[in-house]
Amino acid sequence: MTDQSFDLVVLGGGSGGYAAALRAAELGRTVAVVEQDLLGGTCLHRGCVPTKALLHTAEVADAVRRAGSVGISATLDGIDMAAAVAWREKLVDGKHRGLASLVRARGITVVDGRGTLTSADGAPAVEVAGDRFIGTDVVVATGAGSRTIPGVELGGRILDSEAALALDEVPKRAVILGGGVIGVEFASAWRSLGADVTIVEALDSLIANEDPSSRKALEKAYRQRGIGLELGSRVTGVEQSEHGVRIAVDRGGEEVGIDADVVLVAVGRGPVTDGLGLAEAGVETDRGFVVVDPSLRTTAPHVWAVGDIVAGPQLAHRGFRHGLFVAETIAGKNPSPLDDSLFPRVTYSTPEVASVGLTEPQAVETHGADRVVTREVSLAGNAKSEIVSAGADSRAGFAKVVALVDGPVIGVHLVGDRVGELITEGQLAVAWEARADDLAPLIHAHPTQSEALGEAFLALAGSPLHTL
Amino acid sequence: MTDQSFDLVVLGGGSGGYAAALRAAELGRTVAVVEQDLLGGTCLHRGCVPTKALLHTAEVADAVRRAGSVGISATLDGIDMAAAVAWREKLVDGKHRGLASLVRARGITVVDGRGTLTSADGAPAVEVAGDRFIGTDVVVATGAGSRTIPGVELGGRILDSEAALALDEVPKRAVILGGGVIGVEFASAWRSLGADVTIVEALDSLIANEDPSSRKALEKAYRQRGIGLELGSRVTGVEQSEHGVRIAVDRGGEEVGIDADVVLVAVGRGPVTDGLGLAEAGVETDRGFVVVDPSLRTTAPHVWAVGDIVAGPQLAHRGFRHGLFVAETIAGKNPSPLDDSLFPRVTYSTPEVASVGLTEPQAVETHGADRVVTREVSLAGNAKSEIVSAGADSRAGFAKVVALVDGPVIGVHLVGDRVGELITEGQLAVAWEARADDLAPLIHAHPTQSEALGEAFLALAGSPLHTL
Repeated sequence: MTDQSFDLVVLGGGSGGYAAALRAAELGRTVAVVEQDLLGGTCLHRGCVPTKALLHTAEVADAVRRAGSVGISATLDGIDMAAAVAWREKLVDGKHRGLASLVRARGITVVDGRGTLTSADGAPAVEVAGDRFIGTDVVVATGAGSRTIPGVELGGRILDSEAALALDEVPKRAVILGGGVIGVEFASAWRSLGADVTIVEALDSLIANEDPSSRKALEKAYRQRGIGLELGSRVTGVEQSEHGVRIAVDRGGEEVGIDADVVLVAVGRGPVTDGLGLAEAGVETDRGFVVVDPSLRTTAPHVWAVGDIVAGPQLAHRGFRHGLFVAETIAGKNPSPLDDSLFPRVTYSTPEVASVGLTEPQAVETHGADRVVTREVSLAGNAKSEIVSAGADSRAGFAKVVALVDGPVIGVHLVGDRVGELITEGQLAVAWEARADDLAPLIHAHPTQSEALGEAFLALAGSPLHTL
Repeated sequence: MTDQSFDLVVLGGGSGGYAAALRAAELGRTVAVVEQDLLGGTCLHRGCVPTKALLHTAEVADAVRRAGSVGISATLDGIDMAAAVAWREKLVDGKHRGLASLVRARGITVVDGRGTLTSADGAPAVEVAGDRFIGTDVVVATGAGSRTIPGVELGGRILDSEAALALDEVPKRAVILGGGVIGVEFASAWRSLGADVTIVEALDSLIANEDPSSRKALEKAYRQRGIGLELGSRVTGVEQSEHGVRIAVDRGGEEVGIDADVVLVAVGRGPVTDGLGLAEAGVETDRGFVVVDPSLRTTAPHVWAVGDIVAGPQLAHRGFRHGLFVAETIAGKNPSPLDDSLFPRVTYSTPEVASVGLTEPQAVETHGADRVVTREVSLAGNAKSEIVSAGADSRAGFAKVVALVDGPVIGVHLVGDRVGELITEGQLAVAWEARADDLAPLIHAHPTQSEALGEAFLALAGSPLHTL
């Protein structure tokens, strides 16, 4: 057993952990990161990046299928999932190596192993296989893991998202349990790659945290794409056989059976906080999430928590910000306060859904219906959107702005192909509490998809150009 | 001969003209628009929209060709330009009908015919085939037309951009005279569609108005794509035969000949101001451009000019803004002042080039080298950019920020696939004179291409995350 001391010890090398480590090192701190798997965490290895790669493969399949509609004669000869997986692994590997060398270049010590929180003479520490890494401060950044449904055991044809990513062929018939972000992204990809897909969701809508306009647009688009939706339906049983899986679903009292080749369980992700010695070290948790103050301090002195173990939206870029925030706070800097509603959210389905700030119902609940105004501009009139969506099964899409009457923009909601890139402008508007009159003079290049948001801002200011 | 009176008469129904008309009508004015061709003008019928459609067809061809690199087995069977043209015409036609019905819905009178400026009892007017349309105010919005090279006559295999768009097959060998926006966009599209393409440009770089970093990146990418570049070269002769065209080029003293099937003359566009009665009506011009004050008033009372006839960047969204600005000024509103450097510029080549504000040399010239700081972040480390560019011949790309030391961002420059949509954030930053410290807290969704600009802002603030 050896002891080593650092200014900062980080438990977990995912988005939140490595961001804290990098920023602290940049600020002159000595830093150790303890990681039992690979630097980069879920997002890089099993989450955002590989799923976006899968979705791009799916987008290319759609592009080939639709090529004729824009004058390109092309044949889709097949899906080579082994090649898709190989490409994706190479991409992830490259990014992993880039991250590892950046961490190395900043002089950060990386400890390979499973760490638990402990203390050494009153200072917080992380213990790894008997060795102690003592920090003036410790950041806990252990992330989240797949949730399961009681009675539905993973294994065989029943997959979590990691196992689904590893498939070397596209399932012919897939049932996805859960209509949240992960579920709808897999549904989109598999459908584009030729699968029959059904989503079973207990709530009465997909992506339930999004604005009702976005939910409705996505559901309509999915139906047009031939994706089966069993909304307001509960799974009552899953039975595997040699040839498939039968899923029993309670559709509002009616019992239906769906046959599939694979079942993806995508009912959300929960914080990884068990068995880490948190309670023993004085770190309180609440339903698994670490309890923190607004500066991400836990209930144990000099122990901080970042990322998905802190209740709120589970987003890699939230982890990054948490990490930067804590490193800067420890260094005595005064970073801008964190606000969960300011993290933009992107669902990379076809069509994409992106949002920031409040939904219309949240705005009405917070401010009262008479203080809330909305403007929605369809992408149907947007030249660039029409072009990029040529030949699509569904051309749903809009830009919606939620604002206070004579006040700032408090929410932006987008649906459509490629709109994920546009939400940054919404983030700026909401973060800077911009008003219609601030935003109306902004100039959007023509023809871009971003013009739709520009039109929504103009409409909010009472001066629409291309809309009635 | 009849006389009709309106609050506003607009000569020319392109981007600038129809925007003025729509906004004026919205503000309660009676409005007539005189248009000799089709509402929507060059941008909709012969410019931005159809070229972007052609470029999308080209993008799809590339996607099919590169599909294997992401696991999609596909065959490019051929290019069906007739189908591409039919799709594009349908798209343009739909937008034209939408615009026409919007104009109708706002109660605007559309006069079909060629108008000239005149006056009636001291009021400005537009005369069309003997009829006079008298306005309390008149807006001249006659746009721009293709420039030609002395000694190079259009016709046969020698095309302007409109004729090039109308081709129903892809030329095998094309020479493009002019390396500005139009030239490089056609080069990109034709190359993707299988042509051998050479650009001949008298200046020593492509897109000479862009930042040197952008120019170099585009030139490198074009060379990687196999596009021939004859920079710093002048055309000395063009000879058509039955089987092709031979272009004689002076390459810095050395005479070379290039054989091609077609030649595209893309040496820029000039204002359409001749034969309109401008001088007679007291509207001064300077080298063809209408002379205006900062509020777009011409030298004749109550006559205004908007769009490409006003010297400055030739952009549809500049025309829109000009139109809105004049309509609001006439209505006694006080619109934000116009600033040519705030119009974002997008070149829809592969890779795309987008910019707003000053280039680095312009910034240095205006403010002095010691007051200018730049940060450039490569797209090579951006996950989403890597994904969308998978399999590309060239993966050039970066986000570059030009700022004053301890001052605002004054220029943003982007190169890479799909970056045109990202320039809005740059426009916001430059228009709002944002400083690094204002921009660093902004949150970009992960993984998006927009993160690259976020990293550049973080780097400018001295706190980069993923870059050294």
